[in-house]
Amino acid sequence: MAQHHKQGARLHVSPEKDRYHLYVAHACPWAHRTLIARALKGLEDVISITVVMPIWQRTNPKDEHVGWMFADHSSSGNNVVTNSAGLGGPFPASYPSNEADPIFNARSVREIYEKVNDKDGKYTVPILFDKKLKTIVSNESSEIIQMLNSEFDEYASCAEVDLEPEDMKEAMAAVDSWIYPSLNNGVYKCGFAHTQEAYNAAIDELTAAFDRAEDILSTQRFIAGKRFTLSDIRLFVTLLRFDEVYVVYFKTNTRSVANSSVLLNYCRDIYQMDGVAETVDMHQIKEHYFCSHPDLNKFSIVPRGPDFERLLQAPHGRESFDVKRRRISKGQVSISDEDKSTLKSDVSVDSLEVV
Amino acid sequence: MAQHHKQGARLHVSPEKDRYHLYVAHACPWAHRTLIARALKGLEDVISITVVMPIWQRTNPKDEHVGWMFADHSSSGNNVVTNSAGLGGPFPASYPSNEADPIFNARSVREIYEKVNDKDGKYTVPILFDKKLKTIVSNESSEIIQMLNSEFDEYASCAEVDLEPEDMKEAMAAVDSWIYPSLNNGVYKCGFAHTQEAYNAAIDELTAAFDRAEDILSTQRFIAGKRFTLSDIRLFVTLLRFDEVYVVYFKTNTRSVANSSVLLNYCRDIYQMDGVAETVDMHQIKEHYFCSHPDLNKFSIVPRGPDFERLLQAPHGRESFDVKRRRISKGQVSISDEDKSTLKSDVSVDSLEVV
Repeated sequence: MAQHHKQGARLHVSPEKDRYHLYVAHACPWAHRTLIARALKGLEDVISITVVMPIWQRTNPKDEHVGWMFADHSSSGNNVVTNSAGLGGPFPASYPSNEADPIFNARSVREIYEKVNDKDGKYTVPILFDKKLKTIVSNESSEIIQMLNSEFDEYASCAEVDLEPEDMKEAMAAVDSWIYPSLNNGVYKCGFAHTQEAYNAAIDELTAAFDRAEDILSTQRFIAGKRFTLSDIRLFVTLLRFDEVYVVYFKTNTRSVANSSVLLNYCRDIYQMDGVAETVDMHQIKEHYFCSHPDLNKFSIVPRGPDFERLLQAPHGRESFDVKRRRISKGQVSISDEDKSTLKSDVSVDSLEVV
Repeated sequence: MAQHHKQGARLHVSPEKDRYHLYVAHACPWAHRTLIARALKGLEDVISITVVMPIWQRTNPKDEHVGWMFADHSSSGNNVVTNSAGLGGPFPASYPSNEADPIFNARSVREIYEKVNDKDGKYTVPILFDKKLKTIVSNESSEIIQMLNSEFDEYASCAEVDLEPEDMKEAMAAVDSWIYPSLNNGVYKCGFAHTQEAYNAAIDELTAAFDRAEDILSTQRFIAGKRFTLSDIRLFVTLLRFDEVYVVYFKTNTRSVANSSVLLNYCRDIYQMDGVAETVDMHQIKEHYFCSHPDLNKFSIVPRGPDFERLLQAPHGRESFDVKRRRISKGQVSISDEDKSTLKSDVSVDSLEVV
């Protein structure tokens, strides 16, 4: 039986520096959420991380399971791997940013679950791990990001950042209710459809949700309203992967973020927040998806792609929403000096929070 | 031994109305070239056609070959097919525009080759068939389009159209020399690469050729110069399929025709020539590619796509190249009435020929 926290129950953590560890994958959008929350809260020195290798491998010769593996630095980087069908690559068995498991020296994420006697069989990342009690606190990303947002403030260098403000919870829940099924999970429903009917339903739902997000973000800076929240992180991680991965690999080619100035600038706005770009590893994102399902891509060819991340480095201009809003709330006054400096400055989470 | 014409030898046809028949597939870019040449020359009443069904099927239970099949209208449209691995669909066994083989009542294109004792084993379309001698005249599209251009003028309703003008042959050969390997065949080299190295080389070559075509077409109306030629048909058939098929299915996602105003308008220019739009069946193009290689797309899901063909219906504005060129050749005179009417009118091949 799993010893760790189950979804829906109240979380119990005892915030301490260097007690909790995050296991993540760069590719996984759910794991990526926790990395972004950790960066925006300034918890890099409080919660340690290990990033698994991008390409799923057979985790145990005795069965067919494929999943996340830790880097194998054992033979001076000469080790190479293929995809789980023995084709593609050869790919490196380690990258500089991927380390061996520091807690159990496990070979796979599956082994972490087995060490704590979790028999659920879903060997997913992210995992928030309690190094003191040697147990999984949670493997549910929505819970982990809530904990990172509220439970570690005495150690966080950006404790003033609140990614789930009380007065926005209702608006957040309203957008989360369709972003999750139609976009975050919607891309997977397109990509893993086994029938044309299932794909058609999923692509219709996805396309409508994409346009809905674009509509909302054409009149307000963030998806749940005036402030940046966990709902934006939720939306961002899917949009970030959209053009490079989902359009091709999951056949979500009715839309493109690059062709939506609204959504492209929205992604730029978030990407340019302090610490966020450092959480993005597009190489590992692409290598994971394109090389982890031989049924979808037998020879694990990774497409060259449109270099979407380069697009994210241009100015986004979305500070102007804050100015417009202030002008309305203050009546038709001219733009204040404070507004002007907001318009010019790079956006940081701090400045967003005081708006 | 094959009885029909071999590439490189001189062609012998005896032009006659209703003697020659074209076997084509809507999806195949090589076959599509012959349909476009036939339309632009006005040979619809002279050379009959049969369009095969889009999805490759096993052609003979005794071996593994998969290939083009004729429509099966035998059971009132209730017949359905899957892909050659028995998955996907079910798809219709006939469409209104696809007919049974009128000559041999063959089930597959392979059977046509077998009927004429062609043992080469490449059961491709297009086939130009001589109904009188019951033989294949040619199955090489570049030869067929040259024949359609020059050999049937006494029966062609647009005999004045010359798609291979003597004074442009050198320029045509120069562009064909890179359009074929880098674009027409280049997309296949990307899509059927079995190693990352092979893909990387192919996508680099393709991307450079795409940009080269864009550069050339940003300063002249057609790819070989001032007049529309067979080289434009060659380029068009690949660009037409690029966004809907190749970007996703063959991983050619460094570029997109829709994102290149030059190449998009170039495609519009050709698509809007008299008779060309009628040769385009994007439904069958997509159904062929996405459903004919279970190794690339196990469940034969056809992506919804960006509706590229709709984009082709907008004005292209490329008549202005002719005006500019005339102004230069005539010195800095004002635009003549003739030029103004060219600017306003829809482009037809006739008007292109007199420019």
